[in-house]
Amino acid sequence: MEQHTISVLVENKFGVLARVAGLFSGRGYNIESLTVSKTHDPEMSRMTIVTVGDDNILEQIEKQLKKLVDVVSVSDLTGSGYIERELALIKIKAEAARRAEIIQIVEVFSGKIVSVHKEELGIEIHGRATKIENFISLMSEFGIIELARTGRVAMSRSAGATEDIAAQ
Amino acid sequence: MEQHTISVLVENKFGVLARVAGLFSGRGYNIESLTVSKTHDPEMSRMTIVTVGDDNILEQIEKQLKKLVDVVSVSDLTGSGYIERELALIKIKAEAARRAEIIQIVEVFSGKIVSVHKEELGIEIHGRATKIENFISLMSEFGIIELARTGRVAMSRSAGATEDIAAQ
Repeated sequence: MEQHTISVLVENKFGVLARVAGLFSGRGYNIESLTVSKTHDPEMSRMTIVTVGDDNILEQIEKQLKKLVDVVSVSDLTGSGYIERELALIKIKAEAARRAEIIQIVEVFSGKIVSVHKEELGIEIHGRATKIENFISLMSEFGIIELARTGRVAMSRSAGATEDIAAQ
Repeated sequence: MEQHTISVLVENKFGVLARVAGLFSGRGYNIESLTVSKTHDPEMSRMTIVTVGDDNILEQIEKQLKKLVDVVSVSDLTGSGYIERELALIKIKAEAARRAEIIQIVEVFSGKIVSVHKEELGIEIHGRATKIENFISLMSEFGIIELARTGRVAMSRSAGATEDIAAQ
């Protein structure tokens, strides 16, 4: 049971997200995270789907995805040295006395304070999923009020390109 | 026809994404972007949905969303001074002679070079949607090979909290 990161290029047609999501749930597959947004071509959107499951069933899902009329291409990036990132906005409890301690951790993680409140701090953080997980785990000690993660986006690695040189 | 940013907290139940997406497409609503990922509570996920449409129909969709069993809360953040961010990974054409010019623009936008290739550059950029749009539009002059955007995540603004102080 391995985690898979699947990049799907789709035409911006009506209901395509519901059809793709339905294909996963119809096969009993949980989607860990999904992002979908338009690309530089206004007629195309790219989805990045993170899922965990049996390789054989996943192969079947990929085949079925490719058969959907609005799906242009499907690539399972797992194992191909792809570059991945995500971003999170986090609101945490932070009375004045604990602020310095929190700000220090945010700096270590190259995050940013996006809003200040008498008893709360709003934080923006981005990087690889493992970094985000570590940061959230540190912050949970202070008390997380709200958390919004983008989920993973990923980019294929061209032959001859360096590995991730800004990995965080 | 205004753009709306809707934050939906859902239980991590099977097929909830397909049901939410189906509710939008069933009403003829296009989703501009959608992100879904787990929260600090492993039983909950947060979706951020960006959509454009008639306010009355959108109100109906929100009511229907709230009726779905796995939906815990729905908030339309539009107009409430919320904080929003997104992240994008971009692969562009960049032969050696044009590299310096591209790297300069990346620095101005506080982006990062994530991979280098003889004829390509991989770039990471994050910030508000308008900043991402501007960057993509500048990069399209060089030739975009691949683009993966997370789509927007958003965090509500607490009463008494500052506005976005790291707005980019």
